[in-house]
Amino acid sequence: MSCQIMRPGFIQLRVLDMAAALKHYRDAMGLKVVSEEADGRVYLRGYDEFDRHSLVLRPTDRAGLDWYAFKCVNEDAVTYYEERLKKANVEVQRIPAGESPGIGRQIAFKIPTGHELRLYAESEVSEHCPGTENPEIWVEEPRGMRILRMDHALLYGDDIEGNAKLFIEVLEMREAERVVTPDGKRVATFLTCGWKAHDVAFVHYPEKNKFHHVSFFLDSWYDVGHAADLMVKYDIPIDIGPTRHGITRGQTIYFFDPSGNRNEVFSGGYHVYPDTPTRTWGAENLGKAIFYYDRKLNDAFLSVVT
Amino acid sequence: MSCQIMRPGFIQLRVLDMAAALKHYRDAMGLKVVSEEADGRVYLRGYDEFDRHSLVLRPTDRAGLDWYAFKCVNEDAVTYYEERLKKANVEVQRIPAGESPGIGRQIAFKIPTGHELRLYAESEVSEHCPGTENPEIWVEEPRGMRILRMDHALLYGDDIEGNAKLFIEVLEMREAERVVTPDGKRVATFLTCGWKAHDVAFVHYPEKNKFHHVSFFLDSWYDVGHAADLMVKYDIPIDIGPTRHGITRGQTIYFFDPSGNRNEVFSGGYHVYPDTPTRTWGAENLGKAIFYYDRKLNDAFLSVVT
Amino acid sequence: MSCQIMRPGFIQLRVLDMAAALKHYRDAMGLKVVSEEADGRVYLRGYDEFDRHSLVLRPTDRAGLDWYAFKCVNEDAVTYYEERLKKANVEVQRIPAGESPGIGRQIAFKIPTGHELRLYAESEVSEHCPGTENPEIWVEEPRGMRILRMDHALLYGDDIEGNAKLFIEVLEMREAERVVTPDGKRVATFLTCGWKAHDVAFVHYPEKNKFHHVSFFLDSWYDVGHAADLMVKYDIPIDIGPTRHGITRGQTIYFFDPSGNRNEVFSGGYHVYPDTPTRTWGAENLGKAIFYYDRKLNDAFLSVVT
Amino acid sequence: MSCQIMRPGFIQLRVLDMAAALKHYRDAMGLKVVSEEADGRVYLRGYDEFDRHSLVLRPTDRAGLDWYAFKCVNEDAVTYYEERLKKANVEVQRIPAGESPGIGRQIAFKIPTGHELRLYAESEVSEHCPGTENPEIWVEEPRGMRILRMDHALLYGDDIEGNAKLFIEVLEMREAERVVTPDGKRVATFLTCGWKAHDVAFVHYPEKNKFHHVSFFLDSWYDVGHAADLMVKYDIPIDIGPTRHGITRGQTIYFFDPSGNRNEVFSGGYHVYPDTPTRTWGAENLGKAIFYYDRKLNDAFLSVVT
Repeated sequence: MSCQIMRPGFIQLRVLDMAAALKHYRDAMGLKVVSEEADGRVYLRGYDEFDRHSLVLRPTDRAGLDWYAFKCVNEDAVTYYEERLKKANVEVQRIPAGESPGIGRQIAFKIPTGHELRLYAESEVSEHCPGTENPEIWVEEPRGMRILRMDHALLYGDDIEGNAKLFIEVLEMREAERVVTPDGKRVATFLTCGWKAHDVAFVHYPEKNKFHHVSFFLDSWYDVGHAADLMVKYDIPIDIGPTRHGITRGQTIYFFDPSGNRNEVFSGGYHVYPDTPTRTWGAENLGKAIFYYDRKLNDAFLSVVT
Repeated sequence: MSCQIMRPGFIQLRVLDMAAALKHYRDAMGLKVVSEEADGRVYLRGYDEFDRHSLVLRPTDRAGLDWYAFKCVNEDAVTYYEERLKKANVEVQRIPAGESPGIGRQIAFKIPTGHELRLYAESEVSEHCPGTENPEIWVEEPRGMRILRMDHALLYGDDIEGNAKLFIEVLEMREAERVVTPDGKRVATFLTCGWKAHDVAFVHYPEKNKFHHVSFFLDSWYDVGHAADLMVKYDIPIDIGPTRHGITRGQTIYFFDPSGNRNEVFSGGYHVYPDTPTRTWGAENLGKAIFYYDRKLNDAFLSVVT
Repeated sequence: MSCQIMRPGFIQLRVLDMAAALKHYRDAMGLKVVSEEADGRVYLRGYDEFDRHSLVLRPTDRAGLDWYAFKCVNEDAVTYYEERLKKANVEVQRIPAGESPGIGRQIAFKIPTGHELRLYAESEVSEHCPGTENPEIWVEEPRGMRILRMDHALLYGDDIEGNAKLFIEVLEMREAERVVTPDGKRVATFLTCGWKAHDVAFVHYPEKNKFHHVSFFLDSWYDVGHAADLMVKYDIPIDIGPTRHGITRGQTIYFFDPSGNRNEVFSGGYHVYPDTPTRTWGAENLGKAIFYYDRKLNDAFLSVVT
Repeated sequence: MSCQIMRPGFIQLRVLDMAAALKHYRDAMGLKVVSEEADGRVYLRGYDEFDRHSLVLRPTDRAGLDWYAFKCVNEDAVTYYEERLKKANVEVQRIPAGESPGIGRQIAFKIPTGHELRLYAESEVSEHCPGTENPEIWVEEPRGMRILRMDHALLYGDDIEGNAKLFIEVLEMREAERVVTPDGKRVATFLTCGWKAHDVAFVHYPEKNKFHHVSFFLDSWYDVGHAADLMVKYDIPIDIGPTRHGITRGQTIYFFDPSGNRNEVFSGGYHVYPDTPTRTWGAENLGKAIFYYDRKLNDAFLSVVT
C-alpha cells in the first residue's frame, strides 16, 4: 500500500526569547502569525499553506525540537499507523484534539533516535489560505523571505538504521537518498512520504534527539539570494550559503534563529515518483553530498545542533 | 484508493517533416534523441527523466496527437484500471509489449472527447538517465531550452463533463482546477494523478480529438526567458509569452513546432496534496485563468489546434 | 569633447487624478514619495537614486509629458550647452533655481519634435539615498516593483532626423541604435549621454510632442516577472510583456498608469562605451527591433500615446 | 577633464600548463579562443566584447599577472597620459603596435604597488563580435559560464595610498569605494574609469606585485548559480561563493584556475556617475565589505595570491 502520510504538518520548536523569535520568524522570515496562545506558544505559517499552522514556537529555557507532526490522508490512516507502530513494538501515546489549536487528535511516539513524532489527520484551514475561487497567485504579496511553506526537518541521532527501518517498513515512506559507509551502513537517510525529495532526514550523531534544522521552501534561487540579503539586514547569522546540496539538489542557506536553532530556506530540488530509484552516496562523499559547491563539510554541520 | 497512475509517460505526436521536427525538438529545444526506428518514429526524452523516452514523433501527413500514455505504479494497476474501464463501458484494447520500444504491454482506450489514452507500467530505463551513485545534479549539462521532462498535455474536445467523470471516477485522478459556466458545467478541467497541478487538461471545443499542446518543464523563470531567446534564434513562432497562467500559476511560453503542433515550456506552479481543494474559475474569467497577465485570451487559444 | 550631460534627472508627467496616480506610482510600483507640494505636484524617486527626486506628477486635465530634464556634470556644462544651443538657433529659456524643489537653475528648450527638454546641474541629495558609510545594499528593503531608478523616456514626434542632429551634434550624445528606412532616414533613434544603451529615444509619429513611455529600471528578469504579478494584483493594464526588446536587449513590460500614460519596467540591456558602434535596424525589422519575441509590433505601439 | 581611459582592455596572466588552462578558460568558462600564437600565448574573449581579445594566457613556470592593459578613447589620450605620468615621475616604456596581436602601440609603466599597467587605444574588432545590423541578442548562444566580458582585476600590494594617488590624480579615475583604517589610511581602493563600480581594485598586502583575481561578468544571479554547478562538473576549486560583496554589491564566486590564479565570475553591482559619492568602509568592517553574507573574511582572501 502506498504511504498514507501526506506531508509534514507542523513542527514545534523551543525558543528562549519569544520577542526575539518573532522578530526572526515573523519580521525577517515573513511567516504569518496565526495565533499567540495563553500558554505562550505562537503559531505561524507560510503564505502558500492551507492548514492553520505549520510552525509552533514554545518559549522555554532550552532550544531544540519538541516534536515533528505529519498529516495523514484521513483518520483511518492515523489508526492504521497506530496499529502498525504497536505491532512494531513502538509505544504510542494518544493526544486528544485541541492540544495544538485547530488540530484533531494526534498519536505521538518516539523513534529510535529518540525524537518525538506525531501523526494526525485533521486541521482547521487558515482564513488566510490560498484562494480557491478565481484565485490570485497569492492573496497577499509575500513578505520577508517569501516563504511558501514549512517543508521538512533534518534530525540528528544515534540509530539511523533503526529510523530508516521504522520509516520505511512501518510508516511506508520511501528513501529518496542515503549516505552509506563502505560496509553499507547508513550515515544518513532522506525519507519521503510523497513527491518531495525529503520530508524528513536523519544524520548520524552520537547523542539522541538532536535537532539540526527545519527548512522552509522558497520560490527560486533569486529568492534564496534575497533571503541572504535580508539576513544581513536583520543581523541573522548564516551558517553556510547560498549554496547547493548534492543530495536533493536544493539551493539553500543554513542560518540560525536567536535561540540557536538552525533554519534553512531553499528552492528547487527534484521530485520523486514511486519508481524513482534511491540515490546512494558513499560516506567518503558526504561533504559533496551535503555542500555540493564546497565539496566538503563546514565545521558546524556535524557539530552544531540543538 | 489513491490513484495508481503515476505520471504522464510518453506522448506520440504526428509531424509532417521529420528533419524539421528534429531541428525543433532536438536542436532548439534540446531534447535527447533516444532512437530513430525503422518505421520512421523518433523517440526523445528530457534530461531529468529516468524512463527510456517521453516523446514520440511519427512522420505522416497530418499533425496532431496519436495518443497520450500514462505510466502506472505496477502491472496490477494496469489490470485494475482495465477492469474499471470495462465496468464503465469503455472499450479497452490490449497492445502487446514492444509496440513502443522498451515499453511493456499497454492498454488503450478512447475517452469521451475522442482522444486515445494508454496505460502501461513497464519501461526500460534510459542509459542517459540521472545518476544514482554519488550523482551530479545532471549527467550532461542541459542543452537548448534545458528541458527536464515532458510534463503534461492539454487536449480539446466536446465532452468535458464526460472526461472529468471518467478521469475522476474511473481513473481516480483528482481535479486540481476547473472552469465552469454559471450553471456549473465545466468548460475546462485540470486533472492530476499525483502532486502536479495538472498531468492532463481538457478544454471545451466543438470537435472531438483535438490537440492543443504538449508541455515541457523548465527549471526557472530565467530558463523561460532563455527559451524565448532561443525561439528567436531558431525562428520558432511564439503563440504567447513569456507570461503566467492563473490556473496552476505556471510561467510559460506557447509556441509551435514546424508541423503546427503547439508546444509549451513552463516553470513553477504549485503542487497538490490529497487534501488540496479544487480551485474553481468562472467561465467569465477564462481569460485571466489562462493568461494571467493579459487577463484575456489571445485569438489563437480557442481556435488553433491540430 | 565627451558629453557633459550625465543622465536623465527627472521627468514631469501630467496625471488626471492624483489619488489614483499615487496608488499606482507609490503603492503598486513602490516609488518613494519625497514631497507633495502646495501646487499639487508630487515628487518621487526610486530606491537607488541619490538625487532628491526623479519623477514629478502634476495634476491637470490632460495626460502626457511636461518636460524631461537631464542633469549635467556641473554648472559650466549647463552654460556650455546653453551656448551651443543658441548657436544652433535653439531658443533657450532660463528657469531659476527652485522651480522644482531642491533643483538648481535650469535651462529649457524645445527640440525639433516639440518636446521640452531641460538641463541643470544641481540637486539636493535625498535623505533616503543609498548609504555611503559601510553601506548596506539598500537602506530599506525595496517595495512594490522594486524600482531602482527612473531610467529613460521614449518620445514620439515628427522630426526624428532633426532630433538626432540636435542630440548628437549639439548636445554631444551618441546614438546607440537607430531604425532606418531603405533610403537611410531615421524612423527611430536611441540616444545615450553615458553608458546606458539609451537615456532618451525618439520614434517617428505624425504629431509633435507626444509621450510614449517613461521607463524604470529593475534588478532582474525575476523582478520583471514579479512586477507583472503586481500589475494583476493592482489591476494595472499591461500593454505588452513580459518580453524583450531587440533594441537594447532590455527585458520589459509596458503598462499604463491610471491617466493613460505608458510606463515601462525593465531589466538588463547592454552598456555602451565611446567606441561601441551604433546598431542599425532596417525599418522592415521594426517589429523585431521593438518586440524581439513576437517579432511584430502590437497595435498599441504606434498608436497609443499621451 | 573627465577620464580618457575607457575600460579594462585585456589582462595577461601566466599559466603553468596551457592544456589545463584551456580546459578551464575555454571549455569550462566558455571563453572564445581568438588565437594561439607561435610564442605560446593564447588569446581569448567573452561573447559580448567587440575588441579582439580581453584575456591573454602566457605559459611559463610561475603563475600570476604579467600586465593589465586599459583602452583609452583615442591615441591622443594615450599621449596625454604618457605626459602626465612622466610629470609625476613615473617611468613610461613605449611598446610598439603588435606586441599583442591586433593591438596598437602601448605605453607600459609600473605603479607604486609594483604591477605593470598599460594604456593603448587601438584594437582590431573581433570577427565574432556582437552584431550591429539587425543584431540578435547574441551571435552564438553563450556557452559554459556564459561570460559576457572580462570586467576588472583586483591586485595586492604594499602601497595602496600611492596607487590611489596615481590613479586618481594622474590617470583621472574616480574612487567608487575605499576601506580605511581609523586614522584614514586606505586598506583598499576600488577605482573606476567610467560607469562600473570598479575597473581595478587594490588591497593592501606586505609584498609588491601580487595578483588576487581577474573577474568576468555574467548576466544574472541565476548564471552565478549555473557557474557554480559547472565548477563541480569541471572539478574547479571554489574559494568562496556564491555570495555577495558589500563593496560594489556584486553577486559572486571566487575560484581558481589550474595554475592557482584566482578568478571571479559575478553579476549585478551598481553603476557610478561623476557625482556618485565615494563609499567608505571602516577597516573593522572589511569582512562584511568583502563577503557581505558571511560578514567575515575567509582564510584565503588575505593570504592566497599569485
